[in-house]
Amino acid sequence: MQHFIETQQFTKESLTELFKLSSSLEGARERSLEGKILATLFYEPSTRTRLSFESAMMRLGGNVISVESARETSSDVKGETLEDTIRIIGQYADAIVLRHPEIGSAARAATVSKVPIINGGDGAGQHPTQALYDLYTIEREVGRIDGIHVAIVGDLKHGRAARSICYLLGKYDVRMTFVSPPELRMRDDIKEYLAEHEVPYSEVERLDGVMREADVVYQTRIQKERFASPEEYERLKDVYVIDRALADSMKEGAIIIHPLPRVGEIAEDVDDSPHAVYFKQVGYGVTVRMAILKTILGGESDILRPPAI
Amino acid sequence: MQHFIETQQFTKESLTELFKLSSSLEGARERSLEGKILATLFYEPSTRTRLSFESAMMRLGGNVISVESARETSSDVKGETLEDTIRIIGQYADAIVLRHPEIGSAARAATVSKVPIINGGDGAGQHPTQALYDLYTIEREVGRIDGIHVAIVGDLKHGRAARSICYLLGKYDVRMTFVSPPELRMRDDIKEYLAEHEVPYSEVERLDGVMREADVVYQTRIQKERFASPEEYERLKDVYVIDRALADSMKEGAIIIHPLPRVGEIAEDVDDSPHAVYFKQVGYGVTVRMAILKTILGGESDILRPPAI
Amino acid sequence: MQHFIETQQFTKESLTELFKLSSSLEGARERSLEGKILATLFYEPSTRTRLSFESAMMRLGGNVISVESARETSSDVKGETLEDTIRIIGQYADAIVLRHPEIGSAARAATVSKVPIINGGDGAGQHPTQALYDLYTIEREVGRIDGIHVAIVGDLKHGRAARSICYLLGKYDVRMTFVSPPELRMRDDIKEYLAEHEVPYSEVERLDGVMREADVVYQTRIQKERFASPEEYERLKDVYVIDRALADSMKEGAIIIHPLPRVGEIAEDVDDSPHAVYFKQVGYGVTVRMAILKTILGGESDILRPPAI
Repeated sequence: MQHFIETQQFTKESLTELFKLSSSLEGARERSLEGKILATLFYEPSTRTRLSFESAMMRLGGNVISVESARETSSDVKGETLEDTIRIIGQYADAIVLRHPEIGSAARAATVSKVPIINGGDGAGQHPTQALYDLYTIEREVGRIDGIHVAIVGDLKHGRAARSICYLLGKYDVRMTFVSPPELRMRDDIKEYLAEHEVPYSEVERLDGVMREADVVYQTRIQKERFASPEEYERLKDVYVIDRALADSMKEGAIIIHPLPRVGEIAEDVDDSPHAVYFKQVGYGVTVRMAILKTILGGESDILRPPAI
Repeated sequence: MQHFIETQQFTKESLTELFKLSSSLEGARERSLEGKILATLFYEPSTRTRLSFESAMMRLGGNVISVESARETSSDVKGETLEDTIRIIGQYADAIVLRHPEIGSAARAATVSKVPIINGGDGAGQHPTQALYDLYTIEREVGRIDGIHVAIVGDLKHGRAARSICYLLGKYDVRMTFVSPPELRMRDDIKEYLAEHEVPYSEVERLDGVMREADVVYQTRIQKERFASPEEYERLKDVYVIDRALADSMKEGAIIIHPLPRVGEIAEDVDDSPHAVYFKQVGYGVTVRMAILKTILGGESDILRPPAI
Repeated sequence: MQHFIETQQFTKESLTELFKLSSSLEGARERSLEGKILATLFYEPSTRTRLSFESAMMRLGGNVISVESARETSSDVKGETLEDTIRIIGQYADAIVLRHPEIGSAARAATVSKVPIINGGDGAGQHPTQALYDLYTIEREVGRIDGIHVAIVGDLKHGRAARSICYLLGKYDVRMTFVSPPELRMRDDIKEYLAEHEVPYSEVERLDGVMREADVVYQTRIQKERFASPEEYERLKDVYVIDRALADSMKEGAIIIHPLPRVGEIAEDVDDSPHAVYFKQVGYGVTVRMAILKTILGGESDILRPPAI
């Protein structure tokens, strides 16, 4: 039995293996997990993560039972521990996707669980399947990961998705540009990690230049309240919007990805640009989750290393 | 790919075809949609519409993913547009049943969707599968539609179901009687539509006479607050209740239908009258939705014309 | 067609038959209920009961449609009766698991339903599948029911689970000890029932002695507010906690069961005691519900007597 708690469970080699499996599963409808039951146990709402896993499980022929708001169930209200809840849900299902606001919760669940735990987001911790499908989107749409230039844009200080993709990219021969207002720069831990892995990076404040050079622009949201002041927000907000002119300035084959939802930071007329792959990215999310489920529940292979718990 | 947004997508001929398909699906359990996934995306609660579509999909061997209160999902709260949500859910599912409080929302969704949109009610707009199964109930239980006399009873001014069935009946050789308090009469748009289609109709205030003459009595709810005054409510409320004596006054083979829920406007002792088919009607709803799903997802035929969007 | 409303529908003989069927279904994944649809209709939240039934149905190859909070659906808000709701849901599903806060609600539902009703808890009434799997756990883990000594611990006055198991045990040759604070003693109706069935019982206030003697200790929660006074709570609360030392004092082969969730009344270090079977008990719950579903929907046998409604 294998849990999936953190991206560190993958090496560059096993990522290649996972993506090969993912690629073979694109558009597939199988009966390989027939009779298996996946529980989605969500302590905070995340409709897309839930639906994406449910869709992935069903495409493999499996079944799903769901707890959409575990915080409000009577057992949680009565004071049951997460550990006990996991022990119980593990009697109903063959694997559990856990979404929980506390960092480390997925690892805690894994220590007591008799069925595989899949981390569906543990607060400020990881959301490892998201990071995986961001990377998979790059591989599928750019055609390679080694040798590319990736720009990450927006609130790099708080954005979990922006931080997570850096960890994965650290395994590859890439260079990176961080685009953000000064007060929302990528934190030092990530920069040190990249330095250790000899990934060159630079930090800039403006988006326009990097749009012409990057192979991948990873756009994210900046919330108004994250800026130092309303004046700073007014000064900078439009700088980080990708409009059609900016999209058109991109190199051939370059792509724009986004964790979604977007609320204005990519103009709607960018959607039919050949560079816009952020909706396709959602589909790749289902594909990669199929691969994770098949790896964990289908006894597909020993792609995953054990988590460090 | 075909959306189903409005009843106008059917002609009299294609309705006959749809009802033939429906009839062949009564009580059926198939695997014809095995591996397909239907998303029910509800921006306002409608447990019956949701369960009815889910049951229909499962009877055809398909799977279902559900968003019961899309208004409260984090993406909607963050300000995502309906269009983006549709683009994303369309990556998880092979078709989307959309329930939304705004008129025209299903058509808006269809303009951007890469998977079929099925209108599950768009506010004051249409709820086309309901109108279809109301009509199917008439055909199945009376044995014909041409030549019959249909009475529609209750709040005809605001009732969406009452208005919708009129549009469909306009395609047939029927005559109609509208039974309502003066202030809740059918609006002019419907009357003009019927006049254009040469459907004779009359308007009356009392129910008792028409009960003896109609082949179909379509009873609906009147909410207390819709009356001009509390006195008017007191004066009229009992006039519109179908009790057992009224039901017993009906012609042989005549039927009572109702969009449900009822809250007093049909007495409980009418339930075992041979004229009472309103619970059976619910079952016909599942059947007609099976036919719609099979038409749209099973590549059954080109029964449907494209919607006018 | 057979409803399952109350444990009285089983005799000692038919319980043996049900448990034989359950035992054959442990760990099974079948397609025997393929194409069948179970509705879980919950008027009060009970995530575990819902998931347990859903898991059981899916393990038999069946489908599930769910209403998690029927109290908040528009039809209930509009004033629809439970009877009408049952008539309607019965058009969507092949059987209904009903959870409702009012005693007798499942029997009311059964009188009008055209599909089998399974009582998933009717307030202060019964939760018959829970009582069955409590008993099944005893049979599977102790190896027999006749001849054993069962201690029931906690709030015996209000605890539905504690009361229900007594009715079932009344059919067997057991002896019982009730362990509770004086103000939370088992009510007279149960004691009279046991006396009628010649089941010897005693009542004690302390847990430690009985732990050494009982074959089964059925631990339940005591809520602080049930004690006569805060002083009484302080005086007694620790007396009813099973810690590891108490668990270790048990006879070989003796077991601790619990309806869960627990919130302190069994210490966590008891979990890996050989006597602790309360999490396994959850799994037996799925098994017994599979047996009930197969009996009712699979035409398995005539194990069940009709309910007294």
